[in-house]
Amino acid sequence: MIENVVIIGAGNLATQLALALTEKGIQVKQVFSRKLESASALAEKVNAAFTNDLLQLLPEADLYIVAVKDSAILEVLENLHIKNDQLIVHTAGSVPMSILDGFSNNYGVFYPLQTFSKNRKIDFSTIPICIEASHPSTFLALEKLAGRLSSSVNQINSDERKNLHLSAVFVNNFVNHLYAIGADILHEKRLDFGLLKPLILETAQKVQELHPSAAQTGPAKRYDQSIIAAQLKMLHDKPEYQKIYSFVTESIFQFQQKHDHVL
Amino acid sequence: MIENVVIIGAGNLATQLALALTEKGIQVKQVFSRKLESASALAEKVNAAFTNDLLQLLPEADLYIVAVKDSAILEVLENLHIKNDQLIVHTAGSVPMSILDGFSNNYGVFYPLQTFSKNRKIDFSTIPICIEASHPSTFLALEKLAGRLSSSVNQINSDERKNLHLSAVFVNNFVNHLYAIGADILHEKRLDFGLLKPLILETAQKVQELHPSAAQTGPAKRYDQSIIAAQLKMLHDKPEYQKIYSFVTESIFQFQQKHDHVL
Repeated sequence: MIENVVIIGAGNLATQLALALTEKGIQVKQVFSRKLESASALAEKVNAAFTNDLLQLLPEADLYIVAVKDSAILEVLENLHIKNDQLIVHTAGSVPMSILDGFSNNYGVFYPLQTFSKNRKIDFSTIPICIEASHPSTFLALEKLAGRLSSSVNQINSDERKNLHLSAVFVNNFVNHLYAIGADILHEKRLDFGLLKPLILETAQKVQELHPSAAQTGPAKRYDQSIIAAQLKMLHDKPEYQKIYSFVTESIFQFQQKHDHVL
Repeated sequence: MIENVVIIGAGNLATQLALALTEKGIQVKQVFSRKLESASALAEKVNAAFTNDLLQLLPEADLYIVAVKDSAILEVLENLHIKNDQLIVHTAGSVPMSILDGFSNNYGVFYPLQTFSKNRKIDFSTIPICIEASHPSTFLALEKLAGRLSSSVNQINSDERKNLHLSAVFVNNFVNHLYAIGADILHEKRLDFGLLKPLILETAQKVQELHPSAAQTGPAKRYDQSIIAAQLKMLHDKPEYQKIYSFVTESIFQFQQKHDHVL
């Protein structure tokens, strides 16, 4: 049973995960970050020790969680000195579990599918936690830990996780960028972004119940060429928005044609 | 004071508006739709008369609401016989108020900025209602009516409304399409779309408080070229998704560079 952890990383995900674990009674013993002030800031929130030196990692923890950006994982692993049977996981969507092979005999992936900010408290209880492990017993240990945080625990292999992460880029990063474009268009007319907020929320709430193909409305779906042409013209001085408008409109139309018969 | 209305149209917006008005004690006297069964279905919900013949419109209503698709508005107006001083509005984002000029002396626009479905009940109280009117007294009457439905009543002219509608296409139609792409990527791997739902909701909730530029995370923002290249490769058999991926990624990166200094 995992009762305590060492967290390597102090970014958005590391922060929210440390807070959620602590809240559920799992002790965060230590926080590592290359930046001492980041390690210290998070450690303070969860009453943990902290360090910016991987050689100073506490040697006895039930679980080591590597929650650093993808490109830094390997470097961390190469400088980590844990015993062969100590349990280690990473938290990355697009990094295969096999990256951990050789650094311990007991490893896995613990991927919470959500967007995290350092200062925005998040309810972990509904976040899908995606688990993969080197051995069935490791899986069970991670599954149990995940079950203390969330009611959605999922066995997801590296290939599936990679696809989940790709989907997440579309529905989170890209969606957020469309929000930014909406805000930018309004800003130029001195209109308040607040006017779009109820629409943004309802759009997200709608697909909690309906499949997105069934929820689609608007000019692209109807292929209303006069309004599409007029809106493209309004974007004449924003060629990058114009391109997005064209390709997404085209894609919506194709998608609806392909999927209408199955709805 | 507007105490009763005739609604021309029986689509998503007409339906939800009729329900909201009825709930607030404003009588829907009659519903018109070209399809008699659509007119009848909505009329039944709000206890109104119905017709599919514009010549049969009731002659005495405080307000005539034209809530048909953009391309049908003019045809409706040309076949409508109302008195010169009777109040008429349309509900379209991208159609200028001036389309009503000549059909009455007393007209305006009543544009609720939201996505509507026929069968999804919606809370009108937070929906921004955007009003424009031919005369100050008309504006006051429409403002009062809007105020009975929502706490967000906004004076918005035709040019502003056109821009609001363009923004709405980005944050609603296009966002919804990105949800559909996410679902499609998961579907190919037999993964459940439900895994993305908490992420979708949190992404929308985040920008209720933070500006979208400040909420952005992910590989495009960091311009993490190795993951961008890997994800583009995963989409090799979906050229239209690949294009969207490329252009949105490029646009995110440019946007962040341009806006980082003002955040």
